[in-house]
Amino acid sequence: MSFGSVLKIFLPKDRVFYGLFEEVATTLVQMGDLFKSALQEKDLSKRDEMLRTLEDFEHKNDEITHRIFIELGRNFITPLDREDIHYLTTSLDDIADYMWGAAKRIVNYQIHDEYNTLPAFAEIISKSIGAINTGVYSLRDMKDLRAITAACVLVNSLENDADDLLDQTMMKLFSSNITAVELIKQKDIYQMLEVVTDKCEDVANVIESIIIKYS
Amino acid sequence: MSFGSVLKIFLPKDRVFYGLFEEVATTLVQMGDLFKSALQEKDLSKRDEMLRTLEDFEHKNDEITHRIFIELGRNFITPLDREDIHYLTTSLDDIADYMWGAAKRIVNYQIHDEYNTLPAFAEIISKSIGAINTGVYSLRDMKDLRAITAACVLVNSLENDADDLLDQTMMKLFSSNITAVELIKQKDIYQMLEVVTDKCEDVANVIESIIIKYS
Amino acid sequence: MSFGSVLKIFLPKDRVFYGLFEEVATTLVQMGDLFKSALQEKDLSKRDEMLRTLEDFEHKNDEITHRIFIELGRNFITPLDREDIHYLTTSLDDIADYMWGAAKRIVNYQIHDEYNTLPAFAEIISKSIGAINTGVYSLRDMKDLRAITAACVLVNSLENDADDLLDQTMMKLFSSNITAVELIKQKDIYQMLEVVTDKCEDVANVIESIIIKYS
Repeated sequence: MSFGSVLKIFLPKDRVFYGLFEEVATTLVQMGDLFKSALQEKDLSKRDEMLRTLEDFEHKNDEITHRIFIELGRNFITPLDREDIHYLTTSLDDIADYMWGAAKRIVNYQIHDEYNTLPAFAEIISKSIGAINTGVYSLRDMKDLRAITAACVLVNSLENDADDLLDQTMMKLFSSNITAVELIKQKDIYQMLEVVTDKCEDVANVIESIIIKYS
Repeated sequence: MSFGSVLKIFLPKDRVFYGLFEEVATTLVQMGDLFKSALQEKDLSKRDEMLRTLEDFEHKNDEITHRIFIELGRNFITPLDREDIHYLTTSLDDIADYMWGAAKRIVNYQIHDEYNTLPAFAEIISKSIGAINTGVYSLRDMKDLRAITAACVLVNSLENDADDLLDQTMMKLFSSNITAVELIKQKDIYQMLEVVTDKCEDVANVIESIIIKYS
Repeated sequence: MSFGSVLKIFLPKDRVFYGLFEEVATTLVQMGDLFKSALQEKDLSKRDEMLRTLEDFEHKNDEITHRIFIELGRNFITPLDREDIHYLTTSLDDIADYMWGAAKRIVNYQIHDEYNTLPAFAEIISKSIGAINTGVYSLRDMKDLRAITAACVLVNSLENDADDLLDQTMMKLFSSNITAVELIKQKDIYQMLEVVTDKCEDVANVIESIIIKYS
């Protein structure tokens, strides 16, 4: 008898957590889409205006995150392991934090993104968030396990793509003639965007470990 | 019936943990005060001497941290959740580690802190540690919940201040005429000081989640 | 009655985890040895070839890590605490990840390692992994507690050595005449190597906390 089966007998399903996770995932999808659109925008003042609105979504996710922790404190019985809920919540929150952190620096630093690294990162991040959204919405019933696993595998593969994108961009920058200050600025932003995909991978890993337990 | 109420029935209060956490918090307050005084000192050799003594406090906290982990291993029954004790211990230890790490670099790099960023960070850090001290000392009886929550909210707000201070300082540095090497040194130190406030926020978050469970 | 003693009565020993941890530790020893040999190699194209083969070991460890998480999901009863297994697995995986990450950058950046910092780091890392190997292989029976504790103490002391090595190298670089770009490259690699020893310390800390519980 698996750990999951045992839990299924004991635990009433406390549905509130699923709804809150879905709210966070939905906000992340909106952030990812807006981030991608912004970084495809050629008018930089328009782009910056779009990027600044990401803060509202980040605040919204902070509030939902806070509600999840309050629910976690209140509920003795939870539908998922307490540590999984905790880790899933934190990782989802980190995605929004780092995306907003990178957006702020893009607005502040006004780098010359010669190799179109920013839209390339935004593309990867938005895809990765899409896969995470699939995973999070699947937690409620865990019916289509193959689709969930595929989503998690995709997130892992996109994290590798982001890693490669960072490596290749840094190699180009190191052999280019840009100033050290510009190099430092760009490195700062690209690394932060790579961390966004790391946090997506963390979420995929928790979802995968939940799937293993409860299926 | 809440998780906390259930625990209150089952668990004898193993007071040793409270005392050890209070010892750590007290040492942190001393470190924060010394750090602040040092960074207000105009005589740099005197400043460096003060900063070097932070190592003793860091060592002291390492030892208490080690004792907490030994107690955690020995005690089957703990007054707080094992994972909360673990996470609180680690985060408190990180505050001392990063503060000492930053102090070492301040002594080693001898940066030109043109915008008085160092004393500004020390001010934020010392306030944040003060609020954490309030939170830690409140764990023993959890009477004044409003005061604990206020302390945690303050730590979160100070972390935002540190974030803004880092952003604003970096913006000034990027548009200044300092050399790239000096820029790298300063960025290194200021980022480390910002991490100190992140670790303070981690502590505040654990305290808040403990409060929710046990009240 | 200690937590460990209680567990010893209740838990059948699920030996699969020990075998998997030992496989990971063995792969890490091979990586550490190869890394050390590579960084002592004077022929740089030969060195790079050796460093590139580290990726195979990293992939191998990824697969074993994945198997551990699957086993963890399947098994309701585990020989060690679930959270200890989880944390030990993640930290061991991080060692391989950061070592391979650093190796990739060494190949890509072709830095001028004037102060022989790379072989010095490789020496520390290889020793630290050796001590971790001792610790991991001891988990199965926990007979020679003194040897395990000595191994964990050694890992902690080697992490301090790596910290000092990083500090001293950065100080030399800051007062040297190297270009800012070269400085950024070197800082990137050395910091990553220092993180490898941090991850080794994380592993030693988990092993130590397991020892305390079960002895």
